[in-house]
Amino acid sequence: MSELNQDSLSQDQYWMQRAIQLARLGQYSTKPNPNVGCVIVKDGQLIGEGFHPQAGQPHAEVFALRQAGENAKDATAYVTLEPCAHYGRTPPCAEALVKAQVKKVVVACADPNPLVAGKGVKILQDAGIAVETGICEDIAKTLNFGFLKAMATGLPYVRLKIASSLDGRTAMASGESKWITGTTARQDVQHWRAISGAVITGIQTVLADDCELNVRSLENIDLKSVVQPKRIILDRQGQLPLSAKILQNPATVMVMTPFRQELDELGVIQLTPQPLNQLLQTLSQQYQIYDVLVEAGATLSTAFLQQGLVDEMISYVAPTLLGQTARAMFNAEFSQMAEQLRFELIDVTQLGQDIRLRLLPIQEMI
Amino acid sequence: MSELNQDSLSQDQYWMQRAIQLARLGQYSTKPNPNVGCVIVKDGQLIGEGFHPQAGQPHAEVFALRQAGENAKDATAYVTLEPCAHYGRTPPCAEALVKAQVKKVVVACADPNPLVAGKGVKILQDAGIAVETGICEDIAKTLNFGFLKAMATGLPYVRLKIASSLDGRTAMASGESKWITGTTARQDVQHWRAISGAVITGIQTVLADDCELNVRSLENIDLKSVVQPKRIILDRQGQLPLSAKILQNPATVMVMTPFRQELDELGVIQLTPQPLNQLLQTLSQQYQIYDVLVEAGATLSTAFLQQGLVDEMISYVAPTLLGQTARAMFNAEFSQMAEQLRFELIDVTQLGQDIRLRLLPIQEMI
Repeated sequence: MSELNQDSLSQDQYWMQRAIQLARLGQYSTKPNPNVGCVIVKDGQLIGEGFHPQAGQPHAEVFALRQAGENAKDATAYVTLEPCAHYGRTPPCAEALVKAQVKKVVVACADPNPLVAGKGVKILQDAGIAVETGICEDIAKTLNFGFLKAMATGLPYVRLKIASSLDGRTAMASGESKWITGTTARQDVQHWRAISGAVITGIQTVLADDCELNVRSLENIDLKSVVQPKRIILDRQGQLPLSAKILQNPATVMVMTPFRQELDELGVIQLTPQPLNQLLQTLSQQYQIYDVLVEAGATLSTAFLQQGLVDEMISYVAPTLLGQTARAMFNAEFSQMAEQLRFELIDVTQLGQDIRLRLLPIQEMI
Repeated sequence: MSELNQDSLSQDQYWMQRAIQLARLGQYSTKPNPNVGCVIVKDGQLIGEGFHPQAGQPHAEVFALRQAGENAKDATAYVTLEPCAHYGRTPPCAEALVKAQVKKVVVACADPNPLVAGKGVKILQDAGIAVETGICEDIAKTLNFGFLKAMATGLPYVRLKIASSLDGRTAMASGESKWITGTTARQDVQHWRAISGAVITGIQTVLADDCELNVRSLENIDLKSVVQPKRIILDRQGQLPLSAKILQNPATVMVMTPFRQELDELGVIQLTPQPLNQLLQTLSQQYQIYDVLVEAGATLSTAFLQQGLVDEMISYVAPTLLGQTARAMFNAEFSQMAEQLRFELIDVTQLGQDIRLRLLPIQEMI
């Protein structure tokens, strides 16, 4: 009997993992919508599957139910996120599952939005459908860190990218900084940009590097399918030159700046200068930007870190030493070890000759 | 036919890897002798094996031949290092193999000492024994980096250990530095000390930390079997206090200092102040110290690096940020990227919450 349960559990995990893989196919294209995958199974056989490909397109469940057809009756549906219960651009998926007369729905993550959470499940249960939640929840959450955090808290998930030498330097004192990390690490950054609703940088970085911060290449992915992140420049003094390369595609540019008529004419969205925490709230609540990648110099990076606004630091370390007069990656001036910012290391990956660390700030017990 | 060769090759590799594993059992105890393992095989069966456990004890071949007995006749011997040809504390192993009438000897590494290289092989060949060299040579070399380098060049293999924060800091400006890396990383350092003939540090580190730099624990190893490394203090001004903890066991202490009578009375070996490159030569040629671990502050570490004296850097990185006023791990003052010291990354390992990088300096093309 316990063996049967074991089998049934691993069956559920097997199918949910397939649904998660499907969901991931939308990782660069669904924003601001979440990534969702769905698998429909009957008598141990896959009879339908789908994922949400893009905002405005049908949800994962719809594709899967279409494929299953009438066969969906008495089947089990695996969905990575609680089926929606509201009429948006599409009718609620929970009702579609009811209509298809599935027997059981297995859900990885509940909908975190307190206003809608549980409503999808309730529709299913009211129709007599068995619902199980929490299967592979931890993995499913990784599909939608930003969406889940924003729905729960009103703030985006903030990743801070830093590339440094082994001795924690980002550039020479003169600003010279080419080629610290290699091509594999730089290519990896494209992924994090592509899953983000916005990339934030400071005006100094734009002035120094004339960077574009867009997604230029992704392995095995057609760039046309990628929803480009907004490029947000924090420019409290209004110094952004109109000749900046980043303005060649003004539709995806946002600038936090005192109002400038010429930017308005280009169609650039302007944001009132505001504190960083408020800015993040604005991005999430007014612009549906749920995943933010900060790619900035030490001053802005340090500000995000010291204000406790970073959810995850992605640190690329190149095997080189630049010396003590080179620019520090982290500007804080601590005098005691007790002030240090510590992280939990969740992943180390070698990328060419560089390494990438994924780190979660450890909240201080103050 | 080619399949047969393949099989024979993989057989050779299989047995040589076993010999290498055996050799490694002596890694903490044979210094200044090399680690050597030997396996004797007949008709595909293991009939004898051994390793060199300690200077003064028999060589690997002797143990293996003893075990094989008369059965060694017409067998194949696998040895990780070319059998010796000279009368030392034991008669030459090459002659022992001849006497035992083995049919073939497979050798991983030739003896790198230009004075003896090839002599062991010649004794075997002159006796009509087939000799093959170079099987698993790269792995076998890792057993004896120091011995092989010293025999070939007269200089020891120098490892530089550095522990730093993510932003390349080793301590606060005040010197406060406890707990940058965790216990797993600190335990790992014990291994590198235990395979070293000497640990080198600077007087400032001794004054600041009152460190002992000895081997205090190794997993599953009886410390009594470990030949402790010499602890070498570079003290050009003669500042070492006689109360220093490191002097509690003066027999393994060496100090590079202007001559001091009181150290002499303690039995401490004193070295004339000399440049670092000359010091390394002295250690190898006069004291048979072939593996050196530098565990020092930034000034001495930087000197070793900038003088091109480091063969391998072992860099422990803790997931923490200490800020720009904390002490830098690397003191050089470079103004251009072209001056940077680049490394080849040969290994990344997570140790608890820290990571360990093994890095080989890339020689500049000047």
